[in-house]
Amino acid sequence: MGKILRINTKDKSFKFEEVPEEYAGLGGRALTSKMVLKEVPATCQPLGKFNKLVFAPGLLTGSPAANSGRLSAGAKSPLTNGIKESNAGGFAAQKLAKLGIAALVLEDKPEGNEFSTIVINNDGVEILPAGDLEKKGNYDVMESLWDKYGQKTAVLSIGQAGEQCLKGASINQADLNGRPGRAHGRGGLGAVMGAKKIKAIVIDDKGAPKSELADPEAFKAANKKWVNMLRSHPVSGEGLPAFGTAVLVNVINEAGAFPTKNFRTGRFEHAKEISGEKMAEVITERGGITSEGCHPGCVMKCSNVYNDKDGKVLTTGFEYETIWAMGAHTTIKDLDDIAMLDRLCDDYGMDTIEIGVTLGIAMEGGMIEWGDGKAAIELLEKVGAYAPEGKIIGNGALFTGGALGVDRVPEVKGQAFPAYDPRSCKGVGVTYATTPQGADHTAGYGVTANILGVGGNIDPHKKEGNIELSQNLQIATAAVDAAGLCLFVAFPVLDDADGVPTICEMLNARFGLSLTPDDVVALGKQILNDEKEFNRLAGFTKVHDQMPEMFKESFPPHDTTWDFSDDELANTLNF
Amino acid sequence: MGKILRINTKDKSFKFEEVPEEYAGLGGRALTSKMVLKEVPATCQPLGKFNKLVFAPGLLTGSPAANSGRLSAGAKSPLTNGIKESNAGGFAAQKLAKLGIAALVLEDKPEGNEFSTIVINNDGVEILPAGDLEKKGNYDVMESLWDKYGQKTAVLSIGQAGEQCLKGASINQADLNGRPGRAHGRGGLGAVMGAKKIKAIVIDDKGAPKSELADPEAFKAANKKWVNMLRSHPVSGEGLPAFGTAVLVNVINEAGAFPTKNFRTGRFEHAKEISGEKMAEVITERGGITSEGCHPGCVMKCSNVYNDKDGKVLTTGFEYETIWAMGAHTTIKDLDDIAMLDRLCDDYGMDTIEIGVTLGIAMEGGMIEWGDGKAAIELLEKVGAYAPEGKIIGNGALFTGGALGVDRVPEVKGQAFPAYDPRSCKGVGVTYATTPQGADHTAGYGVTANILGVGGNIDPHKKEGNIELSQNLQIATAAVDAAGLCLFVAFPVLDDADGVPTICEMLNARFGLSLTPDDVVALGKQILNDEKEFNRLAGFTKVHDQMPEMFKESFPPHDTTWDFSDDELANTLNF
Repeated sequence: MGKILRINTKDKSFKFEEVPEEYAGLGGRALTSKMVLKEVPATCQPLGKFNKLVFAPGLLTGSPAANSGRLSAGAKSPLTNGIKESNAGGFAAQKLAKLGIAALVLEDKPEGNEFSTIVINNDGVEILPAGDLEKKGNYDVMESLWDKYGQKTAVLSIGQAGEQCLKGASINQADLNGRPGRAHGRGGLGAVMGAKKIKAIVIDDKGAPKSELADPEAFKAANKKWVNMLRSHPVSGEGLPAFGTAVLVNVINEAGAFPTKNFRTGRFEHAKEISGEKMAEVITERGGITSEGCHPGCVMKCSNVYNDKDGKVLTTGFEYETIWAMGAHTTIKDLDDIAMLDRLCDDYGMDTIEIGVTLGIAMEGGMIEWGDGKAAIELLEKVGAYAPEGKIIGNGALFTGGALGVDRVPEVKGQAFPAYDPRSCKGVGVTYATTPQGADHTAGYGVTANILGVGGNIDPHKKEGNIELSQNLQIATAAVDAAGLCLFVAFPVLDDADGVPTICEMLNARFGLSLTPDDVVALGKQILNDEKEFNRLAGFTKVHDQMPEMFKESFPPHDTTWDFSDDELANTLNF
Repeated sequence: MGKILRINTKDKSFKFEEVPEEYAGLGGRALTSKMVLKEVPATCQPLGKFNKLVFAPGLLTGSPAANSGRLSAGAKSPLTNGIKESNAGGFAAQKLAKLGIAALVLEDKPEGNEFSTIVINNDGVEILPAGDLEKKGNYDVMESLWDKYGQKTAVLSIGQAGEQCLKGASINQADLNGRPGRAHGRGGLGAVMGAKKIKAIVIDDKGAPKSELADPEAFKAANKKWVNMLRSHPVSGEGLPAFGTAVLVNVINEAGAFPTKNFRTGRFEHAKEISGEKMAEVITERGGITSEGCHPGCVMKCSNVYNDKDGKVLTTGFEYETIWAMGAHTTIKDLDDIAMLDRLCDDYGMDTIEIGVTLGIAMEGGMIEWGDGKAAIELLEKVGAYAPEGKIIGNGALFTGGALGVDRVPEVKGQAFPAYDPRSCKGVGVTYATTPQGADHTAGYGVTANILGVGGNIDPHKKEGNIELSQNLQIATAAVDAAGLCLFVAFPVLDDADGVPTICEMLNARFGLSLTPDDVVALGKQILNDEKEFNRLAGFTKVHDQMPEMFKESFPPHDTTWDFSDDELANTLNF
């Protein structure tokens, strides 16, 4: 199942290793989390030499399976101080898989200040001075590297935020048009790459042998069923392609779970102005692209290209979470301002959720005015200017709250909340609190049965059933992340009894195995146990699975509160 | 034993309560830690409404016992997120005791932004608008309040740092001349006072009844013995009065344990220029005061007044820890620059250890140049200017390391190291790691037997005996802090078998008790257990009792390393 490529960033050496027994059969998040647990001392400094940055394509990545091109990145997070897995689309996962690389590991840390670029292709590995890419944003970096190494090569890079080792820094991937619209956003992994002084990684699979399938016919049949399943579900087949993830703005707002003005109320009076419907209208009007895949082989195509008033590309991969964080959370209602904030985050390399929430905290602390999009843009530009304000903002919501003396910060384990209020969407609230990743909706997207009516219906305002919902989703998601599949396959998979068996059929046909759905569940649990064990060794206790004090406030319009006891949460994910 | 005065900072009400059974017989740190454990939810936001700020004079405070005028302040620390006790001299402890107030507790938190001043006297309590004291430094605040309420009234106040809720903020006390030379420095308690919007507390004991002694004759005899003991020991009777605490500069430098340039080496080539001997010379030359008590009734008088070149007061209470942190740690060698940095910390209300270490981190991160005193002064002035740089620096060393991507930060539990390298002074190193307070030398001053030859001799470079040394000192110190005694009484007490029995005699004569030295040890253990329990509930594990990664580096000139195992440290303070 490929080799492990280890790059020592201190002495600029590299080596290919056989996958050892303890990592055999793992991919994506299963592999990054296992390697981080086994190889990174849990109490190490996240920006120090003992941390490692691990990239791993999923188990289905590199095969023809639809929507299987996600790349997992893992490390000890400088944001949460716990384990982190953050996955993204782009070209890198498939190219690494085709080069036979099961994991790419960046180790140690140089003593000097010069950045390097890593180039990986079928001939081997080069570690070159980054030269004039230093201090450049991701837009420039990717353009420059595509010019040099060819269009459609995979590029992973950090912008000014990662270079400064800010805890909100992302690792961005060139999207299908060579722009930094895809990101390993959460958990500050860009800062880990920055600490290791790696500016960019270029991956080219030219000349690599075609990846083998153990049973090509069986694979083809399973994948056909798979594609049909994805295309026929109303969310993955209709809603997402038409409006992108921003289709959720009106839905979540309607449900009263759309956190507005730093989680004070669940409805934003200007929701319509920043909705997916509105966005699609603007994109069409200005000649952008409403529907684009985040990686080759995607059949949902929920990404997009958003142009400015002059028809020039303003931003790409403009997502619901970003629009919420930069919009309702900050009460900014101008979609163009929000798009510019998204672009700046992509360019400087920052997580749009973390930084959007941070802008709201900056407003809470009086640094800028509520709803002032221009002021927010100016403030964010301080990151690119290496200015002190940028060193506050770029370090995320909790840090900015610390700088400004704000005690109302929506975060768990140091990571800012996504776009669903935990009081009025309790399934995802349980996930925020208990996932080893820090507050994260993708770790167990309870919005499904809470609000979207996918995979059942569980009252979002009541406790009943929501711990089980979150737990089951966390297990399933971990397995999906290990397969390298896009999280949104969950919509059809949750609604179709044939979903998980079909994934098993593809895995079995690829590797000649005989996995069953029970094995998938066991894999999901194993991943979560590895991650929990790392966090335990890093000093986490059940105290770190609690909600911040602010969620004791009653939340309009449904006047819900967070009412799970510490013990109820502490008993989640115990298997 | 007095009453508890509770002030609700939200509705500006107050009440006097009888001391309940569970707090009976406690004072100083014993009382603040017990109250924080019992009344503050361990997982609360330190700057939120559920935290409480507790002030308690010691058990001997208010009596004629020499050196018994220390006031303990306690809360959940915004710096460490654990329990905090920080004690200081000044007038407040004795005046509270004379007013019969066993503890003053600030509760809740106002919603508005206006600051208040609390005035406590024999007639009761007033909570008044702070008015034009807002945004003023402690020098102005204290001058203004002495003008209004009379010289020698006790003043506790916060400067601009506390108003901004910065984690390095102190609560300062008017010293004997009404300047802010005394501070509850460690742990950011100034930010807690700032969050509760209390700018200053004025305490006047005019008209209060004289405090009663159960056996005046016995007390007098014990105190006489006590004074003789303090005066006849070479450290408390000679070294400290002559050169202040800065007498340690040459001593610790000579021992090779004087951390220089962010803990890279144990000797500073310019140590003599910033030594206590040099300081005494400059003070004398410029007409300052070389020896002054930090509170009435002090017989050691290790405080001082340091004038500038024109003979004008530049700073007061100019201490070893400050001179080390602002000096050797940053490689600033100009004593006047260091004195100005001390003055700014007193004025803005910031812990000189935390902020001195922070300035070194700012140098490590390239914000200013190593050794540049003028640049350090300019940077510190950003705190008074409410500028973004100030919001970084004022939040301490770990925070500043986070802002600048520096992974070499000397801290445990978020609190910066004091002036002794743990590798070449292992007794105090064990204290840094294991005290519930976060890195703190005063919690168990192993320098005594390691370097000063007080209370025995234990090799500072070897592990043997140093866990026991730290543990015994931590127990003894907790009891000393409960008594309201100055920590430096430890020098004679450790060398004189009659030390602890004499303290017991004073306590017994004051309260009509029959305490023995065993009771004192039991009290010390109880305090530590209360503090550890709070931290456990707050989510601390043995992981938080470890040294940062940087102390794996070998430390010149003795080439020592930190070599205690996690388990060895985890078994400290287990009783």
